[in-house]
Amino acid sequence: MTDSPTLALAKDLISRQSVTPEDADCQQVMIERLKALGFEIEVMVFEDTTNFWARRGSEAPLFAFAGHTDVVPAGNLEQWQTPPFEPTIIGDFLHGRGAADMKGSLASMIVAVEQFIAENPNHKGSIGFLITSDEEGPFINGTVRVVEALMDRDEKIDMCIVGEPSSTEVVGDVVKNGRRGSITGDLTVKGIQGHVAYPHLAKNPVHQSLMAIHELATTEWDQGNAYFPPTSFQIPNVHAGTGASNVIPGEFNVQFNLRFSTELNNDAIVARVTKTLNKHDLDYDLKWTFNGDPFLTDTGALLDAVVDAVDAVNQTKPALLTTGGTSDGRFIARMGGQVVELGPVNATIHKVNECVKVSDLEKLTKMYQKTLENLLA
Amino acid sequence: MTDSPTLALAKDLISRQSVTPEDADCQQVMIERLKALGFEIEVMVFEDTTNFWARRGSEAPLFAFAGHTDVVPAGNLEQWQTPPFEPTIIGDFLHGRGAADMKGSLASMIVAVEQFIAENPNHKGSIGFLITSDEEGPFINGTVRVVEALMDRDEKIDMCIVGEPSSTEVVGDVVKNGRRGSITGDLTVKGIQGHVAYPHLAKNPVHQSLMAIHELATTEWDQGNAYFPPTSFQIPNVHAGTGASNVIPGEFNVQFNLRFSTELNNDAIVARVTKTLNKHDLDYDLKWTFNGDPFLTDTGALLDAVVDAVDAVNQTKPALLTTGGTSDGRFIARMGGQVVELGPVNATIHKVNECVKVSDLEKLTKMYQKTLENLLA
Repeated sequence: MTDSPTLALAKDLISRQSVTPEDADCQQVMIERLKALGFEIEVMVFEDTTNFWARRGSEAPLFAFAGHTDVVPAGNLEQWQTPPFEPTIIGDFLHGRGAADMKGSLASMIVAVEQFIAENPNHKGSIGFLITSDEEGPFINGTVRVVEALMDRDEKIDMCIVGEPSSTEVVGDVVKNGRRGSITGDLTVKGIQGHVAYPHLAKNPVHQSLMAIHELATTEWDQGNAYFPPTSFQIPNVHAGTGASNVIPGEFNVQFNLRFSTELNNDAIVARVTKTLNKHDLDYDLKWTFNGDPFLTDTGALLDAVVDAVDAVNQTKPALLTTGGTSDGRFIARMGGQVVELGPVNATIHKVNECVKVSDLEKLTKMYQKTLENLLA
Repeated sequence: MTDSPTLALAKDLISRQSVTPEDADCQQVMIERLKALGFEIEVMVFEDTTNFWARRGSEAPLFAFAGHTDVVPAGNLEQWQTPPFEPTIIGDFLHGRGAADMKGSLASMIVAVEQFIAENPNHKGSIGFLITSDEEGPFINGTVRVVEALMDRDEKIDMCIVGEPSSTEVVGDVVKNGRRGSITGDLTVKGIQGHVAYPHLAKNPVHQSLMAIHELATTEWDQGNAYFPPTSFQIPNVHAGTGASNVIPGEFNVQFNLRFSTELNNDAIVARVTKTLNKHDLDYDLKWTFNGDPFLTDTGALLDAVVDAVDAVNQTKPALLTTGGTSDGRFIARMGGQVVELGPVNATIHKVNECVKVSDLEKLTKMYQKTLENLLA
């Protein structure tokens, strides 16, 4: 049996070892297909990262697919049933690194656009592709830079589907219509180092800080809202001490991260954390890393079109959720348009033996194509 | 001017690079002097550590000097005014690693005994020397092993002066007549590792522990007593996390150390810590290291003799304190005898440019000799 166009393209992409920030010519494969459809191509290389922006049409609205050609490392090869960069069918599943995250999505996007344009060569509006090779890395030279370049020339994506693996059991059971924000604080509480035998000559920053940190860890930041769970506060890293059991440490380092809803923003979080720390009379430094604002697409043509497309294929509507980690959607949302994420089941992503159901890829192609029809036919 | 016998011997010992556990023949120098006085010598080598036990006489009471020939490393040589292992007089002070801790004391002990025996060749009781080369190290193969060997054959030190640098301003202003106990707990609180974006699937052991640790850090363990300050609790080391800002740690390691008075003991501390941790419903492992019980010599012939000897030289009595770090006195005290510490000013010990006032060494020799006269003449 001949592979379907989606499966054939997914296999081609998986066979290229594009571990972040490598692209391994995945983008060239996509570019050739899009050129043949009349897309204008703009390759954007920033430092070690290859990206491209493709557009067909000059009218509004501008609908775009967004995604990444890079994948996470294979990890322990001995635990893989099949070589990670040799696409292999086992039963109903296509195995290989990136099968679900997100070379399968990229293949579905390309084939969906090919089929849509074949039937609608003079579609309304414009279609775009925003593709990067650093989504799994430091996200410095990828989508964020392309978005900046587009904004600099007032080219705005009005509606965007990010192909991240949003689904949990079957493709389309979950559409992410937003993501929480993320902010990280690196707190250094300063004490006075000394010998444990002479505590009156020292000041233990761990002792000083415990109540303040407990208060932060047990704060109710908000109650969430209809689309977001309550904001969560977690301490991923703490450190104090020289290793010696007789030295009172001079510093206590505590890193915390908040995943926050649209009920909060960076400024409000900084103010509340600062207020709590000051109340406890600590001598401290605090460095903030702003990883991304929360975004939400709760109404509009895009969400209607995607929900209808999923329903048309699955005969059931998707759940709309905002849970889970960050994605490049947060950068695209800065342009002010509508952004949703729709992609394969995420059960095996970033794990050994990553795989995707072959029939899910075909369904995903139909969902993407139906969305295009709903918006631009 | 010719060096006094004490100064000459102190210089000889300082010139030998006896960084723990090296002895560099310091003990051999002492042994030759003691042999000449009729001491019986027993060299005790345990693993990498050289020790000796010397005794003159077979009668009770057995009075002993205790000390160590090893020194801590020199540290940054560029910060030394003089080469650390070249004894050098600058003004009133003898400079060199070990000048105060405690080769000066060793020289004073030897000369004091020589002078005492010259005047009292048929003294009462017995005189001993318990000398090690690992006091600054792990204290595994030093005094503790010699004490075990003596106890195994029922040879008991009734009274002991440890030559540790006990003084703060002038030699003899402080005599240590006891030391606090020390106990270390290594606590591992277990949680469930996970992604910060999915806190409901994880359990952060840092969050779980903060109140319990705060309670331990603010507990009043006792109020001390006439000789001991209140028991102190300090956290020298804490660690949690993988380093990544998006991973909830699976474990939280907290090390704490208590310096405790004679109002408490190891069992009582273990029971109270365990009770506190259990109250907070933590899943934890706790490993204890028992560094030494507190000891106190608050009455008896030794303390009277030492106080009188200091008073005879300084025309003022010493303060009796139990503060500060641990010493080998804790091991000798296990024999049940009286133990005090009397030695030079400790202002420069373990630092660069360690030094001792030359006149203090002469006074210390007189104090040791006068103590011998008070007890055994």
